Amino acid sequence: MSDFPCVDCVSATANGAHRDLTPLFDPRSIAVVGASADATKWGGDIAARLVRNEKRRDIYLVNRKGGVICGRRAYRSLSELPSAPDMVMLAVPAAAFEATLEEALGLGTRAFVAVFAGLGEAGAEGKAREVAAVQRIREAGALMIGPNCMGAADTSVAFQGVANLDIPVGSVGFISQSGAMGEEFTMRSQAANSGFSRFVTLGNQADVSIAQILWSYRDHEPTRVIAIYAEELKDGRELACAAAATVAAGKPVLLLTPGRSEASARAAHSHTGSLAPDSAVLDAVCAASGMVLVDTPAALFETTLGFLHTTSLVPGGRLPAGRRLGIVTEGGGHGGNAADCAAAAGLTVPLLGEKTMTEVRAAHEESAGSNPIDFAIGTTDPDAYARVVPALASSGEIDALLAVGQLGYWAARFAEFEDQVEAENKSARSMARAARAAGIPLVVATVYPDTSPAETLRAEGVPVYREIASATSVLGRLADHASRVPTGVPALPLPAPPLAPPANGSAGPLDYWSARGALSASGIDFVAARLVETATADELAGKAAQVAAELHFPVAVKALGLLHKSDAGGVALGLNSEAAVIRAVADMVGRLRISALTVERMAPIQDGLELIVGAKRDPRFGPVLLVGIGGLYAELLADVRTALAPIDEQVAEQLLKALRGAPLLLGARGRPQLDIGAAARAATALSCFAAAHPEVGEAEVNPLLVMTNGALALDARVILN
Amino acid sequence: MSDFPCVDCVSATANGAHRDLTPLFDPRSIAVVGASADATKWGGDIAARLVRNEKRRDIYLVNRKGGVICGRRAYRSLSELPSAPDMVMLAVPAAAFEATLEEALGLGTRAFVAVFAGLGEAGAEGKAREVAAVQRIREAGALMIGPNCMGAADTSVAFQGVANLDIPVGSVGFISQSGAMGEEFTMRSQAANSGFSRFVTLGNQADVSIAQILWSYRDHEPTRVIAIYAEELKDGRELACAAAATVAAGKPVLLLTPGRSEASARAAHSHTGSLAPDSAVLDAVCAASGMVLVDTPAALFETTLGFLHTTSLVPGGRLPAGRRLGIVTEGGGHGGNAADCAAAAGLTVPLLGEKTMTEVRAAHEESAGSNPIDFAIGTTDPDAYARVVPALASSGEIDALLAVGQLGYWAARFAEFEDQVEAENKSARSMARAARAAGIPLVVATVYPDTSPAETLRAEGVPVYREIASATSVLGRLADHASRVPTGVPALPLPAPPLAPPANGSAGPLDYWSARGALSASGIDFVAARLVETATADELAGKAAQVAAELHFPVAVKALGLLHKSDAGGVALGLNSEAAVIRAVADMVGRLRISALTVERMAPIQDGLELIVGAKRDPRFGPVLLVGIGGLYAELLADVRTALAPIDEQVAEQLLKALRGAPLLLGARGRPQLDIGAAARAATALSCFAAAHPEVGEAEVNPLLVMTNGALALDARVILN
Repeated sequence: MSDFPCVDCVSATANGAHRDLTPLFDPRSIAVVGASADATKWGGDIAARLVRNEKRRDIYLVNRKGGVICGRRAYRSLSELPSAPDMVMLAVPAAAFEATLEEALGLGTRAFVAVFAGLGEAGAEGKAREVAAVQRIREAGALMIGPNCMGAADTSVAFQGVANLDIPVGSVGFISQSGAMGEEFTMRSQAANSGFSRFVTLGNQADVSIAQILWSYRDHEPTRVIAIYAEELKDGRELACAAAATVAAGKPVLLLTPGRSEASARAAHSHTGSLAPDSAVLDAVCAASGMVLVDTPAALFETTLGFLHTTSLVPGGRLPAGRRLGIVTEGGGHGGNAADCAAAAGLTVPLLGEKTMTEVRAAHEESAGSNPIDFAIGTTDPDAYARVVPALASSGEIDALLAVGQLGYWAARFAEFEDQVEAENKSARSMARAARAAGIPLVVATVYPDTSPAETLRAEGVPVYREIASATSVLGRLADHASRVPTGVPALPLPAPPLAPPANGSAGPLDYWSARGALSASGIDFVAARLVETATADELAGKAAQVAAELHFPVAVKALGLLHKSDAGGVALGLNSEAAVIRAVADMVGRLRISALTVERMAPIQDGLELIVGAKRDPRFGPVLLVGIGGLYAELLADVRTALAPIDEQVAEQLLKALRGAPLLLGARGRPQLDIGAAARAATALSCFAAAHPEVGEAEVNPLLVMTNGALALDARVILN
Repeated sequence: MSDFPCVDCVSATANGAHRDLTPLFDPRSIAVVGASADATKWGGDIAARLVRNEKRRDIYLVNRKGGVICGRRAYRSLSELPSAPDMVMLAVPAAAFEATLEEALGLGTRAFVAVFAGLGEAGAEGKAREVAAVQRIREAGALMIGPNCMGAADTSVAFQGVANLDIPVGSVGFISQSGAMGEEFTMRSQAANSGFSRFVTLGNQADVSIAQILWSYRDHEPTRVIAIYAEELKDGRELACAAAATVAAGKPVLLLTPGRSEASARAAHSHTGSLAPDSAVLDAVCAASGMVLVDTPAALFETTLGFLHTTSLVPGGRLPAGRRLGIVTEGGGHGGNAADCAAAAGLTVPLLGEKTMTEVRAAHEESAGSNPIDFAIGTTDPDAYARVVPALASSGEIDALLAVGQLGYWAARFAEFEDQVEAENKSARSMARAARAAGIPLVVATVYPDTSPAETLRAEGVPVYREIASATSVLGRLADHASRVPTGVPALPLPAPPLAPPANGSAGPLDYWSARGALSASGIDFVAARLVETATADELAGKAAQVAAELHFPVAVKALGLLHKSDAGGVALGLNSEAAVIRAVADMVGRLRISALTVERMAPIQDGLELIVGAKRDPRFGPVLLVGIGGLYAELLADVRTALAPIDEQVAEQLLKALRGAPLLLGARGRPQLDIGAAARAATALSCFAAAHPEVGEAEVNPLLVMTNGALALDARVILN
């Protein structure tokens, strides 16, 4: 855990994150404005759905034409209702929004579900109307989801307020900006006998935000695992805080969000007016909060299912204690592929000891191989699973179990052989219970996931997947999550006095000497250097030579006042004498017309490793730190790690050690161990600098030379926003 | 194409690869030995299946107890049959194998399908029996698949000889060692209305090999795309040749094989007695042959489907001409995720020009975004696909199209709205035809792949996937395949006279000077060096100093006779004077008791880039070349490329340019362009050396210093097998 604690409730309460969402998830009464008799329309479907589920709350249907809808009177306006509606669902055109809103607020409505589109996502005018409406709603102490959303549900209080969807009962807390993603997740849940505690689509996220929903899910007892599809991570730092608090409360949080590609950012932009976050920043957010980032809608569902079953729902269910996977199969091909996929997911498939293998063979003598264990009899005897799994699960040699292949073969292909189907079901139940008794998570991948044995497994709390790669990917995620200690979302310090802006404007890059000074003041060690400014250019070379002699040769000379001094030929390295300095400076003066420069002692580059250490301010997540191996080659291979700033030295060391090139720091292959502590201190200092200076858009030390004793910054760059 | 042409028919015919497989795929008559009335047994299922399909050939059932099976007389032995069986299917225990074999061969049987297990995969004795049986079969001019297989089928001649499976008619040529993988592929095919031309499971691959089957598929007209699941790639070079020839004939070849992880190799070992190939070698095989390597059973099927529809089946269907993908969707979330997944698959999702977007908006005015194009009306109007796709497909700005989201929504969710379902079907048909008319491959991903609109798409030749990542991954593979020019499987040269073995044995590492000499003779330029051997150790230093002076300072000194001379302290670099050489050599003599050394001119390391160039002999695929960026960091990041040896200079340059660090060679960021041609010549020479010396297990130049003019080998290593 970071020295900088998660801001958690303090700032969350201050900025309204901890809103009471009871009116949204458990309204006392609901009016559908724009209710319709046409079930293909949102106002028709939701009206019928609410009426069908009318148990714990009154449902009023409102249509300006009146008439009868769903067998009951439709009111012409909210004011005609027999009592004030606690929630109003708005299936009206955007043009009618404000009038309806005022009418409802006047009646005391506390929650709005705004289905219509055409405000925030439709240009400046719509955006302005949306902002004004939200202000009115908040002033009145009410709340709104949408516009451009599909509704919300809370199965724990029988509230079914999502268009076109029966939300099945379960333990998943679901948050989606997109209605289509919500429909897809629901379809997948139904197929897997899974369901939801709460379900919400947020559309434009104009008032209630993902972070606010997440805070409420943390405290919602029936919610065990949270799945989020987000297009716009506004208040990103707040979301990170909510995620950290939720994960800390034992509820995994999974996130799917676009942004790995430029085109996906465009797609998000077209849909809810957002810019997608950049993937390295998201990695930092997940490291800080413990949130689990997934890549596809399928992975969002499949991983949710894995967490649900192994962490929450099943008595005795738990995350794997390590990365060692045991694989059992009736088919060598499936077992081998599972081993490959497991390795790709970061798991190991260890050879098992002779004692375990003796027990496995005693249970099923045909068993071939030692992990994967191949029953070597095909599907002829479904009971093999039940016999082998107990021996393996209790071996102490594995942390999780994958049964892979054709379980459900008889049920799917030859249901007429009832004894075999019954044997498959018995075997499935028995293996599930043996794994649970041993405290080992069990996951199944089978070509036949839609069969009674698969149902039996699900009923016993075992996640069942159609694809081997789905199962191994989920198992890898579970092991990752179990081994990861979130670093916490660091609190931002009070802003330091702003840096002086560059001479030529209020923003942009600081000159090199100022940047160096600012970073040096923040605690970063720079190589010894002196500024040389003279009244006339003629004096520059002589003064530089004199300074160089004082610093000790060899020295470097860097011209000041150039944006890219190195590319412009404004840097001379390895100057060994006063004469060499004079020649180099005279040459620069002639070519570049400079009037100031620095003279710097040459750093012992051959004795160390060059890193790059940088910070940038992300518009959603605030300051973010980056560390990487220096140089063009490392840049080509993108060997970098990121963290939310500020970080402490412990987190900095973790980042450095997570670089693929970390062995270069740690002393591999006879190389000396370098001073990783000094590198971590420099990275920490830069992260604190960036966090304390909101006016800084980017700050960078490149290279930072890490030596066996100490780390020296050799260059500096600071850009103000 | 390589200067070394694929050996193709020459060696293939020589080693029996081009066998006539007619008796296997179109036998005139079949006897099932071990036929059973119990349909849960292989001999029961296959007997019933063959009898059910008895049209073009006579089926005889043989059971030593006689009786009636499948409503017909069961013969007690092959000799009782009314005529000699062209094929014998052996569902007998392994113990009865040889006797049945002899009886059948005596009758003139030409093909055997050996279902039973317990020979080659069950230890040395079984292996010996298997080898002997195969010899008998081959001497008799017959052939066998298995043992430990599930049979074969050829739907073009109505031969259904696979246990437990009705093989549906289609255009996929399927080859699997594993029966379970065959069942899985068949299930997936049935669900997608796809099918097979030929289907074979090979089990132990004791006689007929994957390569031999593949040659036959190349020449089998109904077969358009070939999918292979292989556990044992024996005769790997032959397989590569067959694949290259098949790909060259316009038939894509897809391969799934274990081997990415250590455990998967163990799994394969347990199943068919094979060692799994190493993934870098497989990459080389695919680059040479054009074969497509996939990772999972799902990917094998899904990619096959993609190739089937875009290359072969559909009139006008074709591979994408480039990597530019157009995405259309009713849901921004799905579109954004598709863009992310497309980028991960190596595709681009370009912004579209204003002309195209004007046409798109004219077709559907709500269209938001410019690739992905979001219909922004959800699923309300299925016709949006039909309206937008023609404008996009004919734009000239994309090479392939992905429709992603909820197509089939009405059919899946609200089938009672028949007009909407009909509109979905019409839209699906219309979009498929528009894409085809424009010559643009179209792939669909939908949450509802099991609906009538999805069926409509399939009937129009459009692959439909459930998962976005499946669709983008397949599209990426198609674009890869379209842009890849196989380098060809190089013929192996006649062996050169073997190298002299090391002094201390027949195999193992050559001493440094011998290795250097051998590689130098093969055409690799080494830095100038001289061997110094003296009668007594005392003279060594003086002689070395004298040689050094002749070579010009600075020099390096390397002790000879040490396995790891650098680690042992047997290398001294940068010696600038005779005195320095004398000191260094005296030190080595004292510490290491050496009696010989080399003196080498120091190479201008600072002016170049160090590469590693190596070759090894793979037991299945023969000599393989590896090039990589040199040094510990590159090794950590595994920046290497491989090729089947020998290669020519053009292929060598391609390999070098495919390194992630290639910009270091090509002159990125103001660095000088290095002599990539010289590096390619050295790599080519090493590959030819390895190919010409079958006794060489490994050969390596590390580092090879590439300079602006030339490339110099600085070290050498050769290990004999």
